[in-house]
Amino acid sequence: MKFCSHCGASLVVKIPPGEDRERHVCDQCGTIHYQNPKIIAGCIPEWEDRILLCRRAIEPRLGLWTLPAGFMELGETLEQAATRETLEEACAEVDELQLYTVLSLPHVDQVHVFFRSRLIRPDFAPGVESLETALFHESEIPWEELAFSTVRKTLRDFFQDRRQGSFTVRVTHLPPATGAAKIRSTDTSRSGAGRNVAKT
Amino acid sequence: MKFCSHCGASLVVKIPPGEDRERHVCDQCGTIHYQNPKIIAGCIPEWEDRILLCRRAIEPRLGLWTLPAGFMELGETLEQAATRETLEEACAEVDELQLYTVLSLPHVDQVHVFFRSRLIRPDFAPGVESLETALFHESEIPWEELAFSTVRKTLRDFFQDRRQGSFTVRVTHLPPATGAAKIRSTDTSRSGAGRNVAKT
Repeated sequence: MKFCSHCGASLVVKIPPGEDRERHVCDQCGTIHYQNPKIIAGCIPEWEDRILLCRRAIEPRLGLWTLPAGFMELGETLEQAATRETLEEACAEVDELQLYTVLSLPHVDQVHVFFRSRLIRPDFAPGVESLETALFHESEIPWEELAFSTVRKTLRDFFQDRRQGSFTVRVTHLPPATGAAKIRSTDTSRSGAGRNVAKT
Repeated sequence: MKFCSHCGASLVVKIPPGEDRERHVCDQCGTIHYQNPKIIAGCIPEWEDRILLCRRAIEPRLGLWTLPAGFMELGETLEQAATRETLEEACAEVDELQLYTVLSLPHVDQVHVFFRSRLIRPDFAPGVESLETALFHESEIPWEELAFSTVRKTLRDFFQDRRQGSFTVRVTHLPPATGAAKIRSTDTSRSGAGRNVAKT
């Protein structure tokens, strides 16, 4: 962030009066440009005892599997965002959304929120951001080819809770990813100004 | 948003190729400036059977009562944001945070998240953004002088659940506020570029 989006003047980084941390400030028009974490909302679409996953057609993590999820847009509720992303990425309609995981990722300034949900019909297909969509039994989940740590955490908790017959909302934070998924990522930017890119 | 924060050129509003909605786009450097909802995190600080509230020293809703809460900052977890806001607004330390309400406010592009929490000691005082801080029994809550609809909803649910002896995570969305709190608000801007301002 170099220029004021309000007046076009150059920005400086400094602690504004009365605040306790550095901000991007415009000395010309006085605007303080706050930056805040972004929300990723997604679904765990269930059809009988199987879960719908999408194989990513875009970076980061191209070719890896994910739950349908993406950046919450202005004017949406969390449930609307999760439902829209499921429709966009998997051409699938869901209902009966129940909050399941709320995962802070402070190293990338994101909060990931997943809802359990019911696939209304077993109809799905790859959206433009997906290469492939498929239903998976627990034993078929491609654990080594999951795109994001939040998806892995959400699916592990989901199957554990399902075996025990009771679901509890899970709230935690995750550290930076390690291992295969990280190595295959091509996006390490923290910029909020480029393409809305999910990161873990 | 008029100018590109990356290169300083004028922005245009248009639907970028492959997308389905208008964005602020820089035709000079190609940057798409995404805008996304912001997260407000806060606490319900409990001391024995009383709740800690703060009377606001700043707009919007100056003079009205609120739970300690504010904008989540970069690099934080949800729990860290809620804890920090409680320390800043009420000089109070909390622990044992438990997610309680998750409230989408699509009309102001915010998601409010409140945690039940334990006041570590009955020590508190107004921070710079508060005029007054105090512990309230349920019968003492100033229902007609609460600053935000999300605070009212969270407190109503909290006391109902407490009477029933069991707390459930509440996930919903709220419409624009009506009544006294709205009339007394002086902030109706949707800008994300000014002071981080909580709105309902």
